Order: sequence, then C-alpha cells, then structure tokens
Amino acid sequence: MNSKEMENFLKNIKNGDISIEDGMDKLKDLSYSDLGFAKIDNHRELRVGYPEVIYCEGKTVKQIKGIVSLMLTKDINILGTRATRVMYEGVKEICGDAQYNELARTIVIRRKDVEPSSTYIALVTGGTSDIPVAEEAAVTAEIFGNKVERIYDVGVAGIHRLFDNLDVIRRAKVIITVAGMEGALTSVVGGLVDKPVIAVPTSVGYGASFKGLAALLSMLNSCSSGVSVVNIDNGFGAGYLASIINKL
Amino acid sequence: MNSKEMENFLKNIKNGDISIEDGMDKLKDLSYSDLGFAKIDNHRELRVGYPEVIYCEGKTVKQIKGIVSLMLTKDINILGTRATRVMYEGVKEICGDAQYNELARTIVIRRKDVEPSSTYIALVTGGTSDIPVAEEAAVTAEIFGNKVERIYDVGVAGIHRLFDNLDVIRRAKVIITVAGMEGALTSVVGGLVDKPVIAVPTSVGYGASFKGLAALLSMLNSCSSGVSVVNIDNGFGAGYLASIINKL
Amino acid sequence: MNSKEMENFLKNIKNGDISIEDGMDKLKDLSYSDLGFAKIDNHRELRVGYPEVIYCEGKTVKQIKGIVSLMLTKDINILGTRATRVMYEGVKEICGDAQYNELARTIVIRRKDVEPSSTYIALVTGGTSDIPVAEEAAVTAEIFGNKVERIYDVGVAGIHRLFDNLDVIRRAKVIITVAGMEGALTSVVGGLVDKPVIAVPTSVGYGASFKGLAALLSMLNSCSSGVSVVNIDNGFGAGYLASIINKL
Amino acid sequence: MNSKEMENFLKNIKNGDISIEDGMDKLKDLSYSDLGFAKIDNHRELRVGYPEVIYCEGKTVKQIKGIVSLMLTKDINILGTRATRVMYEGVKEICGDAQYNELARTIVIRRKDVEPSSTYIALVTGGTSDIPVAEEAAVTAEIFGNKVERIYDVGVAGIHRLFDNLDVIRRAKVIITVAGMEGALTSVVGGLVDKPVIAVPTSVGYGASFKGLAALLSMLNSCSSGVSVVNIDNGFGAGYLASIINKL
Amino acid sequence: MNSKEMENFLKNIKNGDISIEDGMDKLKDLSYSDLGFAKIDNHRELRVGYPEVIYCEGKTVKQIKGIVSLMLTKDINILGTRATRVMYEGVKEICGDAQYNELARTIVIRRKDVEPSSTYIALVTGGTSDIPVAEEAAVTAEIFGNKVERIYDVGVAGIHRLFDNLDVIRRAKVIITVAGMEGALTSVVGGLVDKPVIAVPTSVGYGASFKGLAALLSMLNSCSSGVSVVNIDNGFGAGYLASIINKL
Amino acid sequence: MNSKEMENFLKNIKNGDISIEDGMDKLKDLSYSDLGFAKIDNHRELRVGYPEVIYCEGKTVKQIKGIVSLMLTKDINILGTRATRVMYEGVKEICGDAQYNELARTIVIRRKDVEPSSTYIALVTGGTSDIPVAEEAAVTAEIFGNKVERIYDVGVAGIHRLFDNLDVIRRAKVIITVAGMEGALTSVVGGLVDKPVIAVPTSVGYGASFKGLAALLSMLNSCSSGVSVVNIDNGFGAGYLASIINKL
Amino acid sequence: MNSKEMENFLKNIKNGDISIEDGMDKLKDLSYSDLGFAKIDNHRELRVGYPEVIYCEGKTVKQIKGIVSLMLTKDINILGTRATRVMYEGVKEICGDAQYNELARTIVIRRKDVEPSSTYIALVTGGTSDIPVAEEAAVTAEIFGNKVERIYDVGVAGIHRLFDNLDVIRRAKVIITVAGMEGALTSVVGGLVDKPVIAVPTSVGYGASFKGLAALLSMLNSCSSGVSVVNIDNGFGAGYLASIINKL
Amino acid sequence: MNSKEMENFLKNIKNGDISIEDGMDKLKDLSYSDLGFAKIDNHRELRVGYPEVIYCEGKTVKQIKGIVSLMLTKDINILGTRATRVMYEGVKEICGDAQYNELARTIVIRRKDVEPSSTYIALVTGGTSDIPVAEEAAVTAEIFGNKVERIYDVGVAGIHRLFDNLDVIRRAKVIITVAGMEGALTSVVGGLVDKPVIAVPTSVGYGASFKGLAALLSMLNSCSSGVSVVNIDNGFGAGYLASIINKL
Repeated sequence: MNSKEMENFLKNIKNGDISIEDGMDKLKDLSYSDLGFAKIDNHRELRVGYPEVIYCEGKTVKQIKGIVSLMLTKDINILGTRATRVMYEGVKEICGDAQYNELARTIVIRRKDVEPSSTYIALVTGGTSDIPVAEEAAVTAEIFGNKVERIYDVGVAGIHRLFDNLDVIRRAKVIITVAGMEGALTSVVGGLVDKPVIAVPTSVGYGASFKGLAALLSMLNSCSSGVSVVNIDNGFGAGYLASIINKL
Repeated sequence: MNSKEMENFLKNIKNGDISIEDGMDKLKDLSYSDLGFAKIDNHRELRVGYPEVIYCEGKTVKQIKGIVSLMLTKDINILGTRATRVMYEGVKEICGDAQYNELARTIVIRRKDVEPSSTYIALVTGGTSDIPVAEEAAVTAEIFGNKVERIYDVGVAGIHRLFDNLDVIRRAKVIITVAGMEGALTSVVGGLVDKPVIAVPTSVGYGASFKGLAALLSMLNSCSSGVSVVNIDNGFGAGYLASIINKL
Repeated sequence: MNSKEMENFLKNIKNGDISIEDGMDKLKDLSYSDLGFAKIDNHRELRVGYPEVIYCEGKTVKQIKGIVSLMLTKDINILGTRATRVMYEGVKEICGDAQYNELARTIVIRRKDVEPSSTYIALVTGGTSDIPVAEEAAVTAEIFGNKVERIYDVGVAGIHRLFDNLDVIRRAKVIITVAGMEGALTSVVGGLVDKPVIAVPTSVGYGASFKGLAALLSMLNSCSSGVSVVNIDNGFGAGYLASIINKL
Repeated sequence: MNSKEMENFLKNIKNGDISIEDGMDKLKDLSYSDLGFAKIDNHRELRVGYPEVIYCEGKTVKQIKGIVSLMLTKDINILGTRATRVMYEGVKEICGDAQYNELARTIVIRRKDVEPSSTYIALVTGGTSDIPVAEEAAVTAEIFGNKVERIYDVGVAGIHRLFDNLDVIRRAKVIITVAGMEGALTSVVGGLVDKPVIAVPTSVGYGASFKGLAALLSMLNSCSSGVSVVNIDNGFGAGYLASIINKL
Repeated sequence: MNSKEMENFLKNIKNGDISIEDGMDKLKDLSYSDLGFAKIDNHRELRVGYPEVIYCEGKTVKQIKGIVSLMLTKDINILGTRATRVMYEGVKEICGDAQYNELARTIVIRRKDVEPSSTYIALVTGGTSDIPVAEEAAVTAEIFGNKVERIYDVGVAGIHRLFDNLDVIRRAKVIITVAGMEGALTSVVGGLVDKPVIAVPTSVGYGASFKGLAALLSMLNSCSSGVSVVNIDNGFGAGYLASIINKL
Repeated sequence: MNSKEMENFLKNIKNGDISIEDGMDKLKDLSYSDLGFAKIDNHRELRVGYPEVIYCEGKTVKQIKGIVSLMLTKDINILGTRATRVMYEGVKEICGDAQYNELARTIVIRRKDVEPSSTYIALVTGGTSDIPVAEEAAVTAEIFGNKVERIYDVGVAGIHRLFDNLDVIRRAKVIITVAGMEGALTSVVGGLVDKPVIAVPTSVGYGASFKGLAALLSMLNSCSSGVSVVNIDNGFGAGYLASIINKL
Repeated sequence: MNSKEMENFLKNIKNGDISIEDGMDKLKDLSYSDLGFAKIDNHRELRVGYPEVIYCEGKTVKQIKGIVSLMLTKDINILGTRATRVMYEGVKEICGDAQYNELARTIVIRRKDVEPSSTYIALVTGGTSDIPVAEEAAVTAEIFGNKVERIYDVGVAGIHRLFDNLDVIRRAKVIITVAGMEGALTSVVGGLVDKPVIAVPTSVGYGASFKGLAALLSMLNSCSSGVSVVNIDNGFGAGYLASIINKL
Repeated sequence: MNSKEMENFLKNIKNGDISIEDGMDKLKDLSYSDLGFAKIDNHRELRVGYPEVIYCEGKTVKQIKGIVSLMLTKDINILGTRATRVMYEGVKEICGDAQYNELARTIVIRRKDVEPSSTYIALVTGGTSDIPVAEEAAVTAEIFGNKVERIYDVGVAGIHRLFDNLDVIRRAKVIITVAGMEGALTSVVGGLVDKPVIAVPTSVGYGASFKGLAALLSMLNSCSSGVSVVNIDNGFGAGYLASIINKL
C-alpha cells in the first residue's frame, strides 16, 4: 500500500465506504503476514525501499522454509544471509532455482529483473581473508540492482597496490572498505576520496584483534572524514546501505 | 514448615516437649535433603513460594537423576532448565512421563494441577531467533500456573507489527520483552505501557553484539521507565519473576 | 486524552464532526508541548501512568526552567532527578516552594495529593554509602504515592543485621535492594522472600568495582530467582518500577 | 591543483618545460604548508572536496592561532571543532569576525558563500541533552552549504513525538540520529525510512552507559538496515558525511 | 640442597675443596633437570616447600611422559593438573599405578606417605556444578597431606543450608569457597568466620557471567574482610595456598 | 556475646529465666547499634575476631562522627580507612587524640594495647609510588597487633634489590606484595618463598595499566603458587588478612 | 626494481625512451602480481627487505596453492604461517619438498641459501606450553638467515633456571621473550640485559588470562625499559622484527 | 662494578682477600643506595647500559628531591619523566641548572657529554596533538646521545605529507611512530621501510578511542611486519628502546 493508496483508504474510512472493523482487518493484512514464529514485513518495500531479507542464523530450517514459501507467493527477489548449506538444501526442496554462494553464505532466489545502476559501488578489501564478508556485501548490492567493482587484497602493508587501483575507487559513487586486523585501509582510502566510505571491520586476525574489535575501534576513530562504520563482518549491512546511497 | 508450624515448634522447645537435640534434628530434616553433591532445598517453597528448579548445565546425568529421584518422592511439579536431550533421556528412565521441550531445553514433570491465573503475562520477542529464550520463559511461567500470551517477531525494524499487537500487550499484568542485537524493542514497549516490563537480552546477533552484551547494555540504559533486566538468555528468570508479579 | 476520549474522538472523525485537519491539529496538541529544545510528553500520564520526570543531567539551567515553567501550567507533581543545587536555585526563582533533597539530588514540586498506598515498598541498602541512591528511589516512590520502609546498612558482612530486619522486608509488596562493591545483598534477600526484588547496583567501591560494574554483574548473575536489575546508581528507575508493581 | 592541472604538469615534466627539480619543489608547495608542529593539507579540498578542519582538542592556543593565520591567507571558510572559549579568544585576536558556538564548541570564520543545497539533512535527537553533539553536526553541515532540519527530543520513551515528525524526516535526503543512553531511536528511525541513516551515539547517560558505549553497541547492532555509525559524540563526522551524501 | 648443605658448599668453595668450575656444575645439577622442552625445578621443594606440579594443559602427551619419567626417578609424589584422559593413558604406560580423577582432571602418583594434618581445610561450594573445581583443590590439598572437609551446594539462594553447616566451617583452620554465577557465597562466609577465606570464582554460569568474570569481580570486591582470591577455576591454586596456611 | 554466653542465654530461654520477648530484645541489642544511616556491627569482634572498621569513602563527615561517637563508648581501638583530612578534622573535634596518616589516609584512635605478635608480616613494594597502599596495609596490621617489616622499592627492574632483602622476606610468617604497572614482583617473590603471599595490585601506572587492571590480571595469573589477590589498592584488606594468618 | 633501476626508469620517461603508457604498464607489472583474490607484493623485498610471507589462516587451500604457485616462479624462499596440515598437503601437491613444522604450524620452501648471521637471537620462553609460539618465531628468524638460541621453560616460578642461562641471553644481539599467564618473565629479563627485548604474550593460561590479555597488558606495562610488545601468539612478528634488528 | 671487576671480586673471595662478610657488604653497597622509600639502582648502568630514570608520577616532591640529591653525587646525566612544574621547582632548589620541558614534562640535568650517534632515529607523529608524547621520546633519546629527526603531523588523512617525508624516514636506523585515534600511521610506515618500527599509541582522541585503547589495538594488530608496540603515551619507553637499537 503506497502513499496514494493510503490516502484513498483514509477517505474511504471517513465516508463510510470502509467500516472501521474492515479497516482494521485490511491494515492488518496489508502490513505483514503472520506465521506465528515470524511476522513477514510485507509493508517493508514501500516503507524503506527493499523487501525484507531473511537473516538465517538462529532460525530452524523449517522456519526458513516457511518464510521462503510465503515470500515466493509474491513477485520479489529473495535474499537469505548467514545461511548454512543445510539451510540451502532445505530451501532448494521448495524452490529448485535457489542459488547458494558458499563464500558469502547467501541464498538467492531471483524472480524479477532489477535495472542495473549506471554508477557503481567500489568494494575494497585489505586482504584475501576478508573476501567472504566482501562477497556478502556484493551479493546484497547486486540483487538490489547495483554494479559492483571488486578491488581485493590492497591492504596498507603494500600500499602501492591500493594506489594502483585508486582511479577505479575514486570514480565510484560510494565505497565499501572491508578489513580485519588493524583496519588501517579505511583511513587511507578515506583520506584519498570525496565519496562516502562505508567501513566493514572483519573478524580476520587473532590475539588482540579480539574477533574484530581492534578493526572496529580503528574504523570508528578514523582520522579521515566521510567514513562511517557497520557491525563486524556485516557485509550485508554495508551492501544494503551502499545500495541506498548509490541510488540517491 | 510454614509460619504457624514454626511458632508451635518454638513453643514446644520452650516448654520442653521437644528437646533441643531433637529440635536440631528436626530443623535439619525440614530444611533440605542432603545428597552429598547437592542439598535439595525443601524449605524453598514455603520461603519463596516455588519449589526448587534444577539448573541442569554443568551437572552430570547421574546427578540430575539423583535430584529428580528425590523430588519425585514429593507431590510437586518438577522443572529442569538448560537440559540436553541426553539429560532428558536419563531422567526418562526413572520417570516415563517426563516431557522435553527441544526449543526451550526444559524437562517438565507434572504431578499436581496449578490453578491458572486470571491475568496473563505478555511475552514479546524482537525476532524469530529469540524464540528459544522466550519459550524457556513461557514453560517456566506456565508450570507455575500463569497464562501466557505470545507475541513473537515484532522487532522495531518493522514497528507496525508491534503497534498492531499493542492491545494484547497493554492488557497484560506484566510484560516480558525478549530481544537480541540492539534490544530496542524493550524501550519502545516500555514507553507505551503502564505495566512492569521485564527485559531479557538474548545472545542473538554477531560481531559487536558480543554474545548479548549490546542488548544487555541497551536494556539497562533504557530511556523508558518501568523496565528492569535479567541476565542474557535468562528466560527462566524472566518467567519466574513474571509469575511472582502476575500473582501479586 | 484517556481511552474513552480517544474513542469519542475517532467517532467524531468518522461522522465528520471533526475534520481531518482539525483532528490532526488536536492530536498534535494533545500529545506533547514543543519547546524546540524539548518536547514535553503530555500524553505520558495517560499512556504509562505517570507524568514525565525531568532528567536534569546534561541540561542547562535555562532549559530546565523552561520545562518546569510549562509543567507548572498543569495540575501535576513535578520531579527532577540528578539535579545540582545550581539547577535547584534556578527552579526556585520561578517556583518558590520547590524542594531540594541534597542527598538524593532531587527537585520536588507538589501540586496535588496522592492517596498513599496501603502496601509498602521495602528499601534495603548494603551500606551507608549506598544511601544517596536509595533516597533517589525513595523520593521517586513517595511522590508517586507509595509508602516506603527504609532498612539501611544491612550488608552481608554482618548478615545478622539483615536477618534482624527480615520481617519488615518480607511483609513488603516489592523490595528494592541497593548495594555497591560485590552486591551480594541482592542474592541473599532474593533467597529469603517471595516478592519481586529490584536490584540497584551502586558505584560505591573502588578498584575492580569498575564504578559499579562488579555489583551490576553480580546482580545479573544472581543465583536467587525473582530478581531483576536496573542501571548502576539508577535509584529513580527502581523507585518508579517499584511504584508500578506496588500498585498492581 | 585539480586533475586537469595535474595532467598539464606531467606533460610539462615530460617535454622538459619543467625540470625534475622544479617539479619536486612545486609538488611540495602545492600539497601542504609546513608549520613544523603542523602540516596544513592544502591539497585536501581538491582531493576530498572540503578544506581541512581544525580539531582543536590537544592543541595549544598558539598552535591553533598559527594554523588559522595560515588558512586566513586563502579564500576559504574555516571550521574549528572541540574548541574551548579560551581557544576562541585567541583566534579572535587575529580574526575579529570569528564566531563561537558555545553549545557546539565550534569556531567558524566565513570567507566565501556556499550555494545552499536544495535537499536537506534531517537531524534528529533522542533527548535535550544530545543537542550539543547535534549542533556540532549542524554547524559542520551548514558551513559546507547544506540545509539542516532539526527535530530534537523525539526519543522512543514518547514515540508519538517521533511519528508526529516523521514526514519531515522522510523527506530528507539523508538522516542523522543523535542519541545517548540505549540509542534505540536509530533503529526505530531506520525501520521507517528509505534514506541513509548516520547514527551518532552520545555519551549522555550514566552507569552502564559507559560513556556512550551502550549507545554505540546498540547502533552497531541495529536490526534496521541502512544504518551506519560514527564515533561517540562525533557530531562533526556525522555532519561531514551527511554533507557528502546530500551533495551526491 | 637445603640451607645447611648450601652453607657447606659455600665453605668448600672458599677453602678450595670445590673448584669454581665444579661449583658451577654442581649448582647447575642441583637446581633443575633440563629436558630441552622443560626444565624440571628440582630445587623447588627446598625453596617453596612442595615439589613442582605438572600443569598439563598445552603440553603434548610425549612431553608429559618425559617429565613424569624424570620425576619418577625421585622419591616424591607427583601431581598433574588439567589432564585429559588421553594424557593419563600416556602416563599409565610408564607408571601403572597412576590414578586419574575424572572430575578433578588430575593425575596422581603416590610414592611416599605424608603425615596428615591435625587441622583441616573447609571446602565450600555454592552449587553442584562447582564441584569439579573444588575437587581439584581437594586432590591438591590431600596429596600435600591435609585433611579436607567438603561442604557442597550451600549457595545463598538457600542460605539455611550454609548456616546448618557453619560449625564445621568455623572449626577449620582455613576455608576455601568455590562459587560461580555471582559468587555471593564468599562474602557471606567471610562475614561469619575468623579464619582466612580463599575464594575461587568458577566459570559456572552463562551470559553476563562472562565465563567467571562476574564471580571474580564479586569476590575481589567482597565487603567482608579476610578474603583473597585466586584465578577463575583455579582449584589447584586454592588447594596449594590452603595447604601452606593449614601447615603454618 | 561469646560462645559460652550464647549457650547460657539459650538455656535461660529454655528454662524460662529469660522470656522470649526479652530474648528478642537482648539479641537485638547485642548484635548491633542502629544509627538509622548505619548499623554498627557490635557482634563482629566475637564473630570474626576484629571490631568493625570504618570505610570512610562515600560517607559524610557527620555520619563518620556519629559512628565514631558510638564506638568511643566501648573499649576498642578504632580504624577509619580512605579518610580525607576534612573527615579527620571532624573526628578530631570529638576525639582529640585521633591520629591521621596522610600517606595511608587512615584515622586511628587507640584505646587499648594489643600484645605484639612474635612473628611478623613482610610488606614488599615494587616501587616508591606503591607506598601509600602499603602504608594502609601496615597501619591496619599494626593496630591489630602485628609486627611489620617494610621492604620498599624492590621491583623486578632491578631484581638484585629484591634478592638482597630475600632473607627478611623469607623469615616472615606471611608476605604482602604491593605493586602496580605489570605487578611481576608478586610472581618472583611467590617463586622464592614457602609462605602465603597476599598480592595487592595498585593503580600505579598509566595507559594500558587501566588503573590497576594490568597488575590485577597479572597477579591472578601468577605462575607461582601460594599466591592470592585482593582488590586494586586494597591495602586494608591485605593487612587484615595478613593479620589473621599471622595469628594462626 | 631497486633504487637505481627506479632512477633510470624515470630518466627514460623524461627523455621519451619509455612512453607514459608503457611506463604505467611497467610500474603495474613490477609492483605486484594480481591473482584476483590476492595481489602478491613483488615489490616488497626491495622495499622492506624480505619477500612477502603467506598468512594462511582464513584462506582456502586453493587460494594458498595459487599464491605458492606464483611465488615458485621466482628464486625466493617461501614461508607460510598459521597453516594447517590440510593446507600443507595441498601445497605439497605442487611442491614436493615443502616442509611442515607441526608445532610451529609453518610451511617452508627453501630455494636459495641465506648467509647465516654472526650474531644471534635469544629466544626465551616461560614454560613448555609457550614453545609452539616460540617455534614460529624461530622458523621465521631462521629462514631469514638468523642464528637462534633457544632457552625454553625458564619462567619466574623457578627463577634460578633463568639466571643459570643469563649468559647466553646477554650475549645475544636481540632477545625474544615468549610467555603466557602473567608474563612476568619479560620484565625480569628486561631488567637484566642491555639489548632490545621483544615480548610475545601467549594465550597460554585460563580464566582471567582472557586468552593472553593478562600477559599482553603485563608486558605493555613492564617496569623494565627496552621492552616492546607484539600481538598475542605472534611468533612470526617477533621473529621478523628480531631478524631486522639482528641484521642492523 | 663491571664484568671484569666482578671476576676479580670473586677471585678475592676465593683466596680469602675478601672475607665473606665483607663481600656481602660490598655487594650491598655496589648494587643500590637505600633511601628507605626508594632503592636507587646504582648497578643499572653496568647491567642495562643506562642509569636509572626517575618516574616522577606518584612520588612526592620530597621523595624526588631525595633521589636527585643522591644521583647528583655521581657523574651522570639525570632524567625525570612525567614531572609537574611543581616537582621541577622542587628540584631546582637543589640543582639550579635543571631544565624543564613543559611539553614533554621532563626534568633534565646534564653532567657529562654523550658522544652523538652517527645514525639517527626518525620520530614521526600522526598529528599535532601527539607532539607531547613524541617530545618525551625525543628528550629521552637525546640525553642518551642519539640524533633525532622529527617529522610531525603526517597522518594518513593527508598521506602525501608522509610520502613527501619518506626519504628522511627511510634513512633512519630505527623509526618511532606516535599516533592516537586509529593509529593507522604505524601500519603505513611499517609497510614502506626496512627498519624496526616502534609504535607509540597516544591517548589523543575521544569516545571509542577509550583513552588510547583503539590506537593500541590497532598497532598490535598491524598488518605490516617489523612493528612492535609500547604502552599508551609511553614516549620515554620508545625513546629508550630506540636508543638501544640505534647504538647496536
């Protein structure tokens, strides 16, 4: 129900074409589907621009299948994140063309084409070990219709690798930096570009990295401006936000 | 031994009907049963209103069976929390009608009926992944004779789902909110009701959720009043406290 | 606007007695007063049962005076917490009978009598140094019309002091325990009563108390059931919640 | 030296119109001015779109005056953040029209007009105590030529205040949420809009807020998508990033 | 080499009966045996009163067997802590009468009798789940010749169980309290006795217990005097120290 | 009331020489004096061996004077810890011979002589800056009748200073080590003696010492046995425990 | 491309012998090899003195094999750290003489001899359990052509073992100390030598060692000078840095 | 007493030229001077290469003067760190030519010339606010006879400032990087040089910098090799270590 429909709905309430009881029911139906263990937010696409994404971690295979079944009744693309292969196999039973990306741990079901963006998102990682998180961001951005340029393994220990790829980074509309350990990549990139930089700390590292805390703090305290941060290993969040910005 | 019995007991000591030695023995027997590795608190129901509950984690199957055996000699309902299936199977050997709730990880043995409460507890979760903790709360509250209304998956990312269920929440005598990640649900609910809100942070989340720490701190700092907090994933504690309040 | 008024209002919208535009305006006025730097929640008393309380910390004296001025136009009792003497003196300029409690750091303005509760709240502290936090709870509970019984300095280092006061604690409808250092008082009380226990960790202590963290963690991990916790030094929150429970 | 100038410069090096030695010198001069204790990044505006901003904290008044003196020789607006009144008075000695914002702790010197943006930034705070941080963001965004809409004190404890202002928030191109305590405001806003949300945790709170840590973790773990986070109390960073996004 | 032998040795050096070179060699031999991967501290018993104990965690089975082999050449009792069953089986190959305590995870080899102490150590646990740590303390104290009285599962949730056993606790020469969760047991015991209390926090608990941190902080901040603390789960350390004190 | 008196008291209750009402009163009087803001634990000396000590931090001067006044009515030595000079001056008004130790921040009032111990406590510090904490321990131990040997500034950076004083340390009955920074002194001492070592971490240091946390963790993880730890800067606790052990 | 080659290259650009386009290409080829998922830093040896080392953790076996394949085309020694046996077996398929060190978890492929250093690195551990980390340091230092003297298991619990080996430690050009638990070894060594000490905290320990945090903080706060610290368990980093210093 | 003297001393003991008692005395005198509150480590210069430095924080002015008085009796340069102006004025009373560096907070007394090093230490800071810590390092290195090249304010937000000064950094024998906030400077420098890098995190920053913790963790997790870290704000430690390395 978009803004215009909402206006008509309210007018109908006012002139009695819709009774208050029916109005209550309708609003209930329009807004979400209730599966008991989950309330699928049908209203979401209209409200925030994208359909709900399934965060699979902590859900049973049965629950995920229930949610996917319901979403399949609509003409939307479906994205599941932090999915195990077992979850994927469950989904595949009810949807043969579901695709699994082992690295990104995503399940993707495509039902409609999204017009690709003319501008692109630059996706930069410090190392090879950061790629799984980066790929989660890439899959997310791509299913939402964005073009993504991957620039992997250009961390500051060999900073010439970054400078060599600076052009493609600078021409992006928005940049995602993905780095573990000390996450210095973000500050260096932030100091070289005039576009928003979304920093994703990863849990790559050991010891005093404290599972990504070091990179997280590093990015939050970046001396470069134009940088903001999402949760540790949150590739999805970065891809989602980059998509919003890329389409502004 | 309730208050009245205690008074009589003391009078008997005074007038010599019970010798001091016998008094000592009696007090010992009344208060707890000693299994060596555990001292079952028989006095508990009189003192705090409920029989002792078995916290199974960290106990051996043999120990749990020993405790259950002893408790079975009395006419009480038995609840075991944080129980694995293996523990349950051990208990089942000595008590065929013990029931296991896989989601809530509880063992329940019913021996007497509890009059259901007229008022109810509203049990609200932010997401689907929070349900196991919520179910532990529900099982606890129910075995103590409370009516529980479940409102699951109404987190603030789709806040209309919460508003749609606000009536049932507001009519409860006490409300339990169960949420992981940033736990914002608690503050939103707290700002909309005039009943006590018991907040249960869950370990649902990743990265900077630090296994529930983010939700815990969030709930402790709630800008809404009327909110208090129990330990991370402590569904039992929330159910227990809600039961006390619901029966005031 | 209470529930009944709200129903009438909606009927008036439906039958056209109130135009949508006027309805929009009315709802705006009813809900809060906008001072620019603050939006006073007039709707609060109807929604959650108590008028808004002024959290003074971080506000300028000018802002506090502006908020008090607006609230004085209504027939309500006013409570300001975490107020300095300087703030109080500012308030006194516009309200001569405002009262300041140095220990509790509260400003109180009484404008209507509240019927005292028949049941009472037991307010227990571990030590003398915990009294300021306890008094904040007491002032809060009392202005909301509750009777409070103070039992101060009965920490577990001399546990007979606690047992000696157990009767008055047990007869309360709800209990607040206020303790710093290791906060063991809460667990001991929790194991001896059948009423809800609201635990307030205080920042009393030094070194590894980490400004109340030790007491906070201790209370969250209480082995006694029926206990929940509010923020460190949050006497107000405990008094507020105790008031809700005391009036159930 | 912009991109085009840089190309000419390199061609001149190639054809010998500029000797390598002269080239070296020129590059040195173009890039920054060396004051010994500070190296002013003249190249910054061309590289990242904005002139360097002076972070005053930890600098002596003499150092700040030296930096301002140098920047005054160019036709640029000057912004100093985290400035004390004493620092401001030092600056005023060398620049009579410098302006000080007590709340935001900023020094501003305007030397050229910036065309105002057609779109605007929505600046939302949870409470009154968050205003100083918000104002730092506002001053920053405004000096960079952005229109800012302030929506203050709409935290979730009285969520109707937020809904009442939702329209102006939704029409913004980018949204900044500023909140302390549990920071739940960010997740609620994030779930209601389709624009990027920049979250600023503040150190408003006490006890287990741990000087803003609770709000920070809360925002990083937001269950709403489209949200990213800057450092605690970093109004400047949020205003700067919002400006970049608003001008995309 | 005890004090007397050391004096003779030095006299021999002085009068030339032992050359400096030989003296150097002798001192080397006396002090420790070098296995390359380990230097067994033969000098330890004379210096600190007890032979070296093998901390098995992090050592390979081969290394442990090497160390045990060497120690078997002397007339001493051998204690290995934090040993897995696999380690024990390795040791058993070279020492058939080695004994394994599954609960305490200790390997014990007895080669000489130790005169039992007349006084005893009271070993008190909060719950059943704390018993493994307590047993490590018991095994340690017993192999060093101490009598140990076990009082298990007397935590403060049912404090009468503690009072019922207070006599045996008070008659001890030194007391060990072993507790997880909030560890309140220590403070309660500390307030009731006039003997040294050694507190052992355990990792029993979940959520905000942070693997024993809550109990550790609780014990360090105990409001009772006469209490000191060892590392989380450090049953060995408590048993060792209690033995030293018991034999004073 | 000592053990024997208690037995008589109970017999009198039994045979009616004391009525239950009088018995109740008597027990109340014997156990503590109630000042409202404080309950002085008169029973303490009989129960744990020492009279109550006044922890002055967080108490008002008026409260401290009230407590001292009450204690002065008995024939006991009085110790106040963490006292400011202002507190001392208040106490001096009611007790002219009260003594203040600026370094240790203690108030001492001597009313009876304590027989000095034959054995002594060795009090060892790592540096000069640790002396205030050590002196608090010394004052505490001395008022309880212990002989104390001070060995100051023998930290491991110049370990020969420690070895040079090893004899006097080894001859003590119990040893207190006081150290900040990394607290390595404790482990070195612990490895060289056969007596109990009480470790006091101090807040001496900066940066990653985190106000004594580094020293605290270091001491808790000591590879030497026979070591236990008290709270950061808790000189009193160490002196008190050392006194208990010294008198065993 | 070393410094001299770089100068020639620039001269060729100036005189046109190399076109700008070719220059661009050449620089690209010289600096790194791009495998997509990894950018091998060929330039590294010239820049920082050593070829790139493969950090295997978080890489797939396929990725590691790809990197090794590329490096095998050059005449360099190859070092892989934090490698599992499975990774090693993958590498062995393409390089039969690759060697695996189970303890150090390293893969080594030798292709050229490195002249051994005349001076040596002293490698000291506190215990036997620290050896795996130490061996990673040793393998690293040795493949870079350094002589390493191992002094294992000389922790301060038996400090005579350290003194007995002090000569060989003091004669080293640089010293690495490897210790877990409280890491006191570093401070003791640091106070006895006049050479740089590189401290490696290890995760050996339990409870309040917090996986090496205690040792890390201890070493950072060392009261001995001349000490610096690398990440927890970072044997590689210590070996690498020691090699740089040893060759100065 | 250097090595040669020590050998003679031992020979004299052997042949009786020095009695054991006299030997004991001599060793006592040679090693340190005992002031009671401090034991000045006279032996230090011979053992670790530099005379003891006075860490002034936490010492009284009287103690500092006592230590300086004693050190003035020897022909050595004196360095006091973390000294306030009040401490300096105390020292000046007994030593008129003592010099105070306000920025570095050091007291310096020069009594003998030190031959300047031919190689130099590069001292690099991220910002202007890091200069005080850097100056402490500089003063330390200089009094020990090292040449220091200062390169200030070259943080990665404007990385061309760093590249412009790379030559002077690369030609140093050892490099100190001093940076707060996210400390990324260290990793960038570490990736560009073949010399040891000593990283000093500073407490410059706010919010999630947690007083330097962010920079500390960042540096410990540096992806560049050849880097080690000292305590937050520990300019002295870095200068001291750099001096040792510079003189190898």
